[in-house]
Amino acid sequence: MKIGILLSGSGVYDGSEIQEAVLAMLAIKEAGADYQCIALDKNQHHVINHLTGEEMNETRNMKVESARIARGDVANIQDMNPAVLDALVLPGGFGAAKNLSSWAFDGAAGTIAPEVKLLIVNMVNAGKPVCGLCVSPVLIAKALEGSAIHPTLTMGSSKGKSPYVIPDFHAGLKDTGALIAEKMIGEVFVDEKNKIVTAPCYMMDANILEIRNNIKKAIEATLALI
Amino acid sequence: MKIGILLSGSGVYDGSEIQEAVLAMLAIKEAGADYQCIALDKNQHHVINHLTGEEMNETRNMKVESARIARGDVANIQDMNPAVLDALVLPGGFGAAKNLSSWAFDGAAGTIAPEVKLLIVNMVNAGKPVCGLCVSPVLIAKALEGSAIHPTLTMGSSKGKSPYVIPDFHAGLKDTGALIAEKMIGEVFVDEKNKIVTAPCYMMDANILEIRNNIKKAIEATLALI
Repeated sequence: MKIGILLSGSGVYDGSEIQEAVLAMLAIKEAGADYQCIALDKNQHHVINHLTGEEMNETRNMKVESARIARGDVANIQDMNPAVLDALVLPGGFGAAKNLSSWAFDGAAGTIAPEVKLLIVNMVNAGKPVCGLCVSPVLIAKALEGSAIHPTLTMGSSKGKSPYVIPDFHAGLKDTGALIAEKMIGEVFVDEKNKIVTAPCYMMDANILEIRNNIKKAIEATLALI
Repeated sequence: MKIGILLSGSGVYDGSEIQEAVLAMLAIKEAGADYQCIALDKNQHHVINHLTGEEMNETRNMKVESARIARGDVANIQDMNPAVLDALVLPGGFGAAKNLSSWAFDGAAGTIAPEVKLLIVNMVNAGKPVCGLCVSPVLIAKALEGSAIHPTLTMGSSKGKSPYVIPDFHAGLKDTGALIAEKMIGEVFVDEKNKIVTAPCYMMDANILEIRNNIKKAIEATLALI
Protein backbone atom coordinates (compact mmCIF):
# COMPACT_ATOMS: atom_id res chain seq x y z
CA MET A 1 0.00 0.00 0.00
CA LYS A 2 1.24 3.46 -0.90
CA ILE A 3 -0.05 6.40 1.13
CA GLY A 4 0.53 9.94 -0.13
CA ILE A 5 1.50 12.64 2.38
CA LEU A 6 0.87 16.13 1.02
CA LEU A 7 3.37 18.62 2.48
CA SER A 8 3.35 22.41 2.18
CA GLY A 9 6.78 23.40 3.49
CA SER A 10 8.59 22.63 6.74
CA GLY A 11 7.40 24.40 9.89
CA VAL A 12 4.04 24.97 11.59
CA TYR A 13 3.70 28.70 10.94
CA ASP A 14 4.43 28.79 7.19
CA GLY A 15 4.41 25.16 6.03
CA SER A 16 3.64 21.66 7.27
CA GLU A 17 3.60 20.98 10.99
CA ILE A 18 6.84 18.98 11.26
CA GLN A 19 5.88 16.75 14.18
CA GLU A 20 2.53 15.84 12.61
CA ALA A 21 4.20 15.01 9.29
CA VAL A 22 6.88 12.82 10.90
CA LEU A 23 4.38 11.04 13.15
CA ALA A 24 2.12 10.37 10.14
CA MET A 25 5.09 8.76 8.34
CA LEU A 26 5.80 6.65 11.43
CA ALA A 27 2.19 5.52 11.85
CA ILE A 28 1.97 4.55 8.16
CA LYS A 29 5.12 2.41 8.38
CA GLU A 30 3.98 0.88 11.67
CA ALA A 31 0.76 -0.19 9.94
CA GLY A 32 2.82 -2.00 7.30
CA ALA A 33 2.22 0.51 4.49
CA ASP A 34 4.63 2.81 2.64
CA TYR A 35 4.40 6.56 2.18
CA GLN A 36 5.24 8.98 -0.60
CA CYS A 37 5.71 12.64 0.27
CA ILE A 38 4.13 15.03 -2.23
CA ALA A 39 4.39 18.78 -2.74
CA LEU A 40 3.65 21.65 -5.11
CA ASP A 41 6.72 23.14 -6.76
CA LYS A 42 5.65 26.68 -5.84
CA ASN A 43 6.73 29.31 -3.34
CA GLN A 44 5.25 29.51 0.13
CA HIS A 45 2.94 32.45 0.86
CA HIS A 46 5.66 33.81 3.18
CA VAL A 47 8.41 32.80 5.59
CA ILE A 48 7.86 33.09 9.36
CA ASN A 49 10.59 33.28 12.01
CA HIS A 50 9.42 30.44 14.28
CA LEU A 51 11.07 32.01 17.35
CA THR A 52 9.39 35.42 17.08
CA GLY A 53 6.37 34.78 14.86
CA GLU A 54 7.46 37.64 12.60
CA GLU A 55 7.61 37.55 8.82
CA MET A 56 11.10 37.26 7.31
CA ASN A 57 12.26 38.91 4.12
CA GLU A 58 12.85 35.58 2.37
CA THR A 59 11.31 33.36 -0.29
CA ARG A 60 11.10 29.60 0.16
CA ASN A 61 9.75 26.92 -2.16
CA MET A 62 7.25 24.41 -0.76
CA LYS A 63 8.79 21.39 -2.46
CA VAL A 64 12.36 22.31 -1.53
CA GLU A 65 11.44 22.90 2.12
CA SER A 66 9.23 19.80 2.31
CA ALA A 67 12.29 17.78 1.27
CA ARG A 68 13.79 18.60 4.68
CA ILE A 69 11.09 16.53 6.39
CA ALA A 70 11.15 13.86 3.68
CA ARG A 71 14.97 13.52 3.52
CA GLY A 72 14.93 14.44 -0.17
CA ASP A 73 12.20 12.22 -1.63
CA VAL A 74 9.26 14.43 -2.62
CA ALA A 75 7.04 13.80 -5.67
CA ASN A 76 5.29 16.47 -7.72
CA ILE A 77 1.58 16.65 -6.99
CA GLN A 78 0.84 16.42 -10.73
CA ASP A 79 2.29 12.89 -10.76
CA MET A 80 0.04 11.69 -7.95
CA ASN A 81 -3.48 10.36 -8.50
CA PRO A 82 -5.71 7.50 -7.33
CA ALA A 83 -3.92 5.08 -9.68
CA VAL A 84 -0.67 5.36 -7.71
CA LEU A 85 -2.04 6.11 -4.22
CA ASP A 86 -4.16 3.95 -1.90
CA ALA A 87 -4.92 6.85 0.44
CA LEU A 88 -3.95 10.49 0.98
CA VAL A 89 -2.88 12.11 4.27
CA LEU A 90 -2.90 15.88 4.77
CA PRO A 91 -0.78 16.93 7.78
CA GLY A 92 -1.54 20.25 9.45
CA GLY A 93 0.49 23.40 9.79
CA PHE A 94 -0.44 26.85 8.50
CA GLY A 95 0.93 25.88 5.09
CA ALA A 96 -2.41 24.16 4.46
CA ALA A 97 -4.22 27.45 5.14
CA LYS A 98 -1.63 29.83 3.63
CA ASN A 99 0.09 27.97 0.77
CA LEU A 100 -2.37 25.28 -0.34
CA SER A 101 -5.40 27.49 0.27
CA SER A 102 -6.03 31.06 1.38
CA TRP A 103 -8.20 30.03 4.35
CA ALA A 104 -5.87 31.77 6.86
CA PHE A 105 -6.60 35.11 5.20
CA ASP A 106 -10.07 34.69 3.68
CA GLY A 107 -11.73 31.95 5.75
CA ALA A 108 -14.32 29.84 3.97
CA ALA A 109 -14.51 32.40 1.14
CA GLY A 110 -10.88 31.69 0.26
CA THR A 111 -9.43 29.75 -2.65
CA ILE A 112 -7.74 26.35 -2.85
CA ALA A 113 -4.80 25.52 -5.12
CA PRO A 114 -6.32 23.76 -8.17
CA GLU A 115 -3.77 20.91 -8.00
CA VAL A 116 -4.77 20.19 -4.39
CA LYS A 117 -8.48 20.32 -5.18
CA LEU A 118 -8.00 17.97 -8.13
CA LEU A 119 -6.05 15.41 -6.08
CA ILE A 120 -8.56 15.40 -3.21
CA VAL A 121 -11.59 15.23 -5.52
CA ASN A 122 -10.04 12.43 -7.58
CA MET A 123 -9.24 10.42 -4.45
CA VAL A 124 -12.76 10.84 -3.07
CA ASN A 125 -14.37 10.03 -6.44
CA ALA A 126 -12.24 6.89 -6.71
CA GLY A 127 -13.41 5.77 -3.26
CA LYS A 128 -9.92 6.09 -1.77
CA PRO A 129 -9.59 7.41 1.79
CA VAL A 130 -8.44 10.94 2.61
CA CYS A 131 -7.19 11.83 6.09
CA GLY A 132 -7.03 15.47 7.26
CA LEU A 133 -5.01 16.30 10.37
CA CYS A 134 -5.20 19.54 12.38
CA VAL A 135 -6.17 22.47 10.11
CA SER A 136 -6.14 20.41 6.91
CA PRO A 137 -9.88 19.64 6.93
CA VAL A 138 -10.18 23.14 5.40
CA LEU A 139 -8.60 21.64 2.25
CA ILE A 140 -11.11 18.79 2.14
CA ALA A 141 -13.96 21.25 2.69
CA LYS A 142 -12.76 23.63 -0.06
CA ALA A 143 -12.10 20.73 -2.47
CA LEU A 144 -15.62 19.32 -2.09
CA GLU A 145 -17.43 22.68 -1.82
CA GLY A 146 -20.26 22.94 -4.31
CA SER A 147 -20.24 19.19 -5.03
CA ALA A 148 -22.86 16.61 -4.11
CA ILE A 149 -20.57 15.37 -1.34
CA HIS A 150 -21.04 16.85 2.13
CA PRO A 151 -18.29 15.39 4.31
CA THR A 152 -18.47 15.36 8.08
CA LEU A 153 -15.28 16.87 9.47
CA THR A 154 -13.71 17.78 12.82
CA MET A 155 -11.09 20.37 13.69
CA GLY A 156 -11.43 19.80 17.43
CA SER A 157 -13.95 20.66 20.09
CA SER A 158 -15.10 23.86 21.75
CA LYS A 159 -15.16 21.86 25.00
CA GLY A 160 -11.38 21.38 25.06
CA LYS A 161 -8.53 23.88 25.39
CA SER A 162 -7.23 25.27 22.13
CA PRO A 163 -4.95 28.11 21.02
CA TYR A 164 -7.51 28.77 18.25
CA VAL A 165 -11.23 29.61 18.11
CA ILE A 166 -12.56 26.19 17.12
CA PRO A 167 -16.22 27.34 16.70
CA ASP A 168 -15.05 29.88 14.07
CA PHE A 169 -13.21 27.20 12.12
CA HIS A 170 -16.20 24.87 12.38
CA ALA A 171 -18.55 27.65 11.23
CA GLY A 172 -16.28 28.14 8.19
CA LEU A 173 -16.40 24.43 7.37
CA LYS A 174 -20.21 24.59 7.57
CA ASP A 175 -20.22 27.51 5.13
CA THR A 176 -18.62 25.23 2.52
CA GLY A 177 -21.40 22.65 2.95
CA ALA A 178 -19.61 20.31 5.32
CA LEU A 179 -21.10 18.85 8.48
CA ILE A 180 -19.30 19.11 11.82
CA ALA A 181 -18.22 16.61 14.45
CA GLU A 182 -16.88 17.85 17.80
CA LYS A 183 -13.86 15.77 18.78
CA MET A 184 -11.33 16.04 21.62
CA ILE A 185 -7.57 15.47 21.17
CA GLY A 186 -7.92 11.79 22.06
CA GLU A 187 -10.51 11.24 19.32
CA VAL A 188 -10.79 11.13 15.52
CA PHE A 189 -13.89 11.29 13.33
CA VAL A 190 -14.47 8.71 10.61
CA ASP A 191 -16.89 9.69 7.82
CA GLU A 192 -17.33 6.12 6.59
CA LYS A 193 -19.62 6.99 3.69
CA ASN A 194 -17.13 9.41 2.13
CA LYS A 195 -14.02 7.61 3.48
CA ILE A 196 -12.75 10.77 5.13
CA VAL A 197 -10.93 10.72 8.48
CA THR A 198 -10.18 13.90 10.43
CA ALA A 199 -8.30 14.44 13.71
CA PRO A 200 -7.77 17.61 15.80
CA CYS A 201 -4.02 17.25 16.53
CA TYR A 202 -2.38 20.63 17.26
CA MET A 203 -5.67 22.51 16.72
CA MET A 204 -6.08 21.65 20.40
CA ASP A 205 -3.66 22.20 23.28
CA ALA A 206 -1.61 19.02 23.20
CA ASN A 207 1.86 17.61 23.76
CA ILE A 208 3.75 15.43 21.29
CA LEU A 209 2.56 12.24 23.00
CA GLU A 210 -1.10 13.20 22.53
CA ILE A 211 -0.35 14.16 18.91
CA ARG A 212 1.34 10.81 18.37
CA ASN A 213 -1.70 8.92 19.70
CA ASN A 214 -4.18 11.06 17.77
CA ILE A 215 -2.31 10.54 14.50
CA LYS A 216 -1.80 6.80 15.08
CA LYS A 217 -5.57 6.47 15.58
CA ALA A 218 -6.29 8.56 12.47
CA ILE A 219 -3.87 6.61 10.24
CA GLU A 220 -5.18 3.25 11.45
CA ALA A 221 -8.76 4.39 10.76
CA THR A 222 -7.73 5.62 7.31
CA LEU A 223 -5.99 2.39 6.33
CA ALA A 224 -9.00 0.40 7.57
CA LEU A 225 -11.10 2.16 4.90
CA ILE A 226 -8.90 0.96 2.00
CA MET B 1 12.97 15.08 34.68
CA LYS B 2 14.12 17.60 32.09
CA ILE B 3 16.09 16.30 29.10
CA GLY B 4 17.90 18.76 26.86
CA ILE B 5 17.79 18.22 23.09
CA LEU B 6 20.57 20.11 21.31
CA LEU B 7 19.47 21.12 17.80
CA SER B 8 21.61 22.61 15.02
CA GLY B 9 19.02 23.74 12.47
CA SER B 10 16.17 21.92 10.72
CA GLY B 11 17.07 19.43 8.01
CA VAL B 12 19.49 16.50 7.68
CA TYR B 13 21.96 18.07 5.23
CA ASP B 14 22.60 21.40 6.99
CA GLY B 15 21.03 21.08 10.45
CA SER B 16 19.40 18.55 12.74
CA GLU B 17 17.89 15.41 11.25
CA ILE B 18 14.21 16.26 11.66
CA GLN B 19 12.86 12.73 12.09
CA GLU B 20 15.50 11.87 14.70
CA ALA B 21 14.78 15.07 16.64
CA VAL B 22 11.00 14.52 16.64
CA LEU B 23 11.32 10.85 17.58
CA ALA B 24 13.69 11.76 20.44
CA MET B 25 11.04 14.21 21.74
CA LEU B 26 8.41 11.49 21.48
CA ALA B 27 10.51 8.86 23.26
CA ILE B 28 11.31 11.29 26.09
CA LYS B 29 7.63 12.10 26.66
CA GLU B 30 6.69 8.41 26.41
CA ALA B 31 9.18 7.69 29.18
CA GLY B 32 7.43 10.23 31.39
CA ALA B 33 10.10 12.95 31.15
CA ASP B 34 10.01 16.43 29.61
CA TYR B 35 12.33 17.93 27.03
CA GLN B 36 13.83 21.33 26.40
CA CYS B 37 15.14 22.11 22.94
CA ILE B 38 18.44 24.00 22.92
CA ALA B 39 20.39 25.77 20.20
CA LEU B 40 23.23 28.17 19.49
CA ASP B 41 22.11 31.61 18.28
CA LYS B 42 24.57 31.50 15.35
CA ASN B 43 24.35 31.00 11.60
CA GLN B 44 24.53 27.56 10.02
CA HIS B 45 27.69 26.74 8.05
CA HIS B 46 25.56 26.84 4.89
CA VAL B 47 22.10 26.09 3.50
CA ILE B 48 21.51 22.97 1.39
CA ASN B 49 18.64 22.42 -1.05
CA HIS B 50 17.34 19.09 0.29
CA LEU B 51 15.92 18.10 -3.13
CA THR B 52 19.14 18.54 -5.11
CA GLY B 53 21.88 18.44 -2.47
CA GLU B 54 23.25 21.73 -3.80
CA GLU B 55 24.27 24.73 -1.72
CA MET B 56 21.83 27.65 -1.76
CA ASN B 57 22.81 31.32 -1.65
CA GLU B 58 21.10 31.88 1.71
CA THR B 59 21.94 32.39 5.36
CA ARG B 60 19.97 30.69 8.11
CA ASN B 61 20.34 30.88 11.88
CA MET B 62 20.52 27.63 13.86
CA LYS B 63 18.22 28.77 16.66
CA VAL B 64 15.62 30.26 14.31
CA GLU B 65 15.52 27.13 12.15
CA SER B 66 15.55 24.77 15.15
CA ALA B 67 12.39 26.54 16.33
CA ARG B 68 10.58 24.95 13.36
CA ILE B 69 11.07 21.50 14.90
CA ALA B 70 10.43 22.76 18.43
CA ARG B 71 7.31 24.82 17.59
CA GLY B 72 8.99 27.97 18.89
CA ASP B 73 10.40 26.89 22.25
CA VAL B 74 14.20 26.84 22.01
CA ALA B 75 16.56 27.82 24.84
CA ASN B 76 20.00 29.37 24.43
CA ILE B 77 22.79 26.89 25.06
CA GLN B 78 24.41 29.34 27.49
CA ASP B 79 21.40 28.96 29.81
CA MET B 80 21.65 25.18 29.91
CA ASN B 81 23.88 23.30 32.35
CA PRO B 82 23.76 20.24 34.62
CA ALA B 83 21.79 22.22 37.23
CA VAL B 84 18.77 22.50 34.92
CA LEU B 85 19.15 19.30 32.86
CA ASP B 86 18.96 15.65 33.94
CA ALA B 87 20.37 14.39 30.64
CA LEU B 88 21.37 15.69 27.22
CA VAL B 89 20.37 14.24 23.83
CA LEU B 90 22.23 15.10 20.64
CA PRO B 91 20.18 14.24 17.51
CA GLY B 92 22.02 13.62 14.25
CA GLY B 93 22.00 15.49 11.00
CA PHE B 94 24.98 17.14 9.30
CA GLY B 95 24.45 20.22 11.49
CA ALA B 96 26.35 18.34 14.22
CA ALA B 97 29.32 17.94 11.85
CA LYS B 98 29.02 21.28 10.00
CA ASN B 99 27.57 23.80 12.48
CA LEU B 100 28.42 22.47 15.94
CA SER B 101 31.79 21.11 14.82
CA SER B 102 33.85 21.09 11.64
CA TRP B 103 34.09 17.27 11.49
CA ALA B 104 32.39 17.14 8.06
CA PHE B 105 35.25 19.16 6.58
CA ASP B 106 38.25 18.36 8.82
CA GLY B 107 37.44 14.96 10.34
CA ALA B 108 38.91 14.26 13.76
CA ALA B 109 41.30 17.21 13.37
CA GLY B 110 38.33 19.60 13.26
CA THR B 111 37.07 21.98 15.92
CA ILE B 112 33.99 21.90 18.15
CA ALA B 113 31.94 24.96 19.11
CA PRO B 114 33.16 25.95 22.62
CA GLU B 115 29.59 26.24 23.95
CA VAL B 116 28.87 22.66 22.85
CA LYS B 117 32.11 21.34 24.33
CA LEU B 118 31.38 23.10 27.61
CA LEU B 119 27.85 21.70 27.89
CA ILE B 120 28.92 18.12 27.12
CA VAL B 121 31.93 18.25 29.45
CA ASN B 122 29.87 19.76 32.26
CA MET B 123 27.19 17.08 31.88
CA VAL B 124 29.76 14.26 31.90
CA ASN B 125 31.63 15.76 34.87
CA ALA B 126 28.37 16.07 36.78
CA GLY B 127 27.62 12.40 36.14
CA LYS B 128 24.58 13.20 34.00
CA PRO B 129 23.92 11.04 30.93
CA VAL B 130 24.64 12.19 27.38
CA CYS B 131 23.04 10.43 24.39
CA GLY B 132 24.50 10.82 20.89
CA LEU B 133 22.38 9.75 17.91
CA CYS B 134 23.62 9.16 14.36
CA VAL B 135 26.66 11.37 13.61
CA SER B 136 26.54 13.20 16.96
CA PRO B 137 29.05 10.95 18.70
CA VAL B 138 31.63 13.12 16.92
CA LEU B 139 30.58 15.92 19.30
CA ILE B 140 31.06 13.72 22.36
CA ALA B 141 34.45 12.60 21.03
CA LYS B 142 35.62 16.16 20.31
CA ALA B 143 34.31 17.44 23.67
CA LEU B 144 36.22 14.80 25.65
CA GLU B 145 39.35 14.72 23.46
CA GLY B 146 42.50 15.24 25.50
CA SER B 147 40.72 14.57 28.80
CA ALA B 148 41.10 11.59 31.10
CA ILE B 149 37.77 10.25 29.85
CA HIS B 150 37.86 7.79 26.95
CA PRO B 151 34.24 7.08 26.06
CA THR B 152 33.18 4.04 24.08
CA LEU B 153 31.03 5.17 21.15
CA THR B 154 29.23 3.70 18.14
CA MET B 155 28.29 5.27 14.83
CA GLY B 156 27.07 2.00 13.34
CA SER B 157 28.71 -1.13 12.01
CA SER B 158 30.79 -1.97 8.96
CA LYS B 159 28.76 -5.21 8.77
CA GLY B 160 25.51 -3.40 7.94
CA LYS B 161 24.50 -1.32 4.91
CA SER B 162 25.24 2.38 5.21
CA PRO B 163 25.31 5.40 2.90
CA TYR B 164 28.54 6.41 4.69
CA VAL B 165 31.95 4.82 5.28
CA ILE B 166 31.50 3.74 8.89
CA PRO B 167 35.11 2.51 9.35
CA ASP B 168 36.36 6.01 8.45
CA PHE B 169 34.09 7.62 11.04
CA HIS B 170 35.13 5.06 13.63
CA ALA B 171 38.82 5.64 12.82
CA GLY B 172 38.23 9.35 13.40
CA LEU B 173 36.61 8.71 16.76
CA LYS B 174 39.62 6.58 17.71
CA ASP B 175 41.95 9.44 16.77
CA THR B 176 40.28 11.55 19.47
CA GLY B 177 40.97 8.90 22.11
CA ALA B 178 37.55 7.22 22.08
CA LEU B 179 36.97 3.48 21.98
CA ILE B 180 34.67 1.93 19.38
CA ALA B 181 31.65 -0.36 19.56
CA GLU B 182 30.22 -1.83 16.35
CA LYS B 183 26.44 -1.68 16.49
CA MET B 184 23.71 -2.46 13.95
CA ILE B 185 20.59 -0.29 13.47
CA GLY B 186 18.63 -2.41 15.95
CA GLU B 187 21.23 -1.84 18.68
CA VAL B 188 22.57 0.93 20.92
CA PHE B 189 25.77 1.04 22.96
CA VAL B 190 25.71 2.00 26.63
CA ASP B 191 29.00 3.20 28.14
CA GLU B 192 27.83 2.75 31.73
CA LYS B 193 31.00 4.06 33.34
CA ASN B 194 30.81 7.41 31.55
CA LYS B 195 26.98 7.43 31.25
CA ILE B 196 27.15 7.88 27.48
CA VAL B 197 24.65 6.21 25.13
CA THR B 198 25.14 6.16 21.35
CA ALA B 199 22.92 4.78 18.56
CA PRO B 200 23.56 4.50 14.80
CA CYS B 201 20.17 5.81 13.51
CA TYR B 202 20.46 7.23 9.97
CA MET B 203 24.23 6.53 9.82
CA MET B 204 22.96 3.15 8.62
CA ASP B 205 20.44 2.37 5.86
CA ALA B 206 17.15 2.49 7.73
CA ASN B 207 13.51 3.43 7.46
CA ILE B 208 11.63 5.62 9.92
CA LEU B 209 10.33 2.60 11.83
CA GLU B 210 13.87 1.35 12.48
CA ILE B 211 14.92 4.88 13.47
CA ARG B 212 11.98 5.07 15.86
CA ASN B 213 12.93 1.79 17.54
CA ASN B 214 16.62 2.69 17.69
CA ILE B 215 15.89 6.07 19.31
CA LYS B 216 13.33 4.64 21.75
CA LYS B 217 15.95 2.14 22.90
CA ALA B 218 18.60 4.87 23.20
CA ILE B 219 16.36 7.24 25.17
CA GLU B 220 15.23 4.49 27.54
CA ALA B 221 18.87 3.49 28.13
CA THR B 222 19.78 7.13 28.73
CA LEU B 223 17.01 7.75 31.25
CA ALA B 224 17.92 4.52 33.05
CA LEU B 225 21.34 6.07 33.79
CA ILE B 226 19.88 9.09 35.62
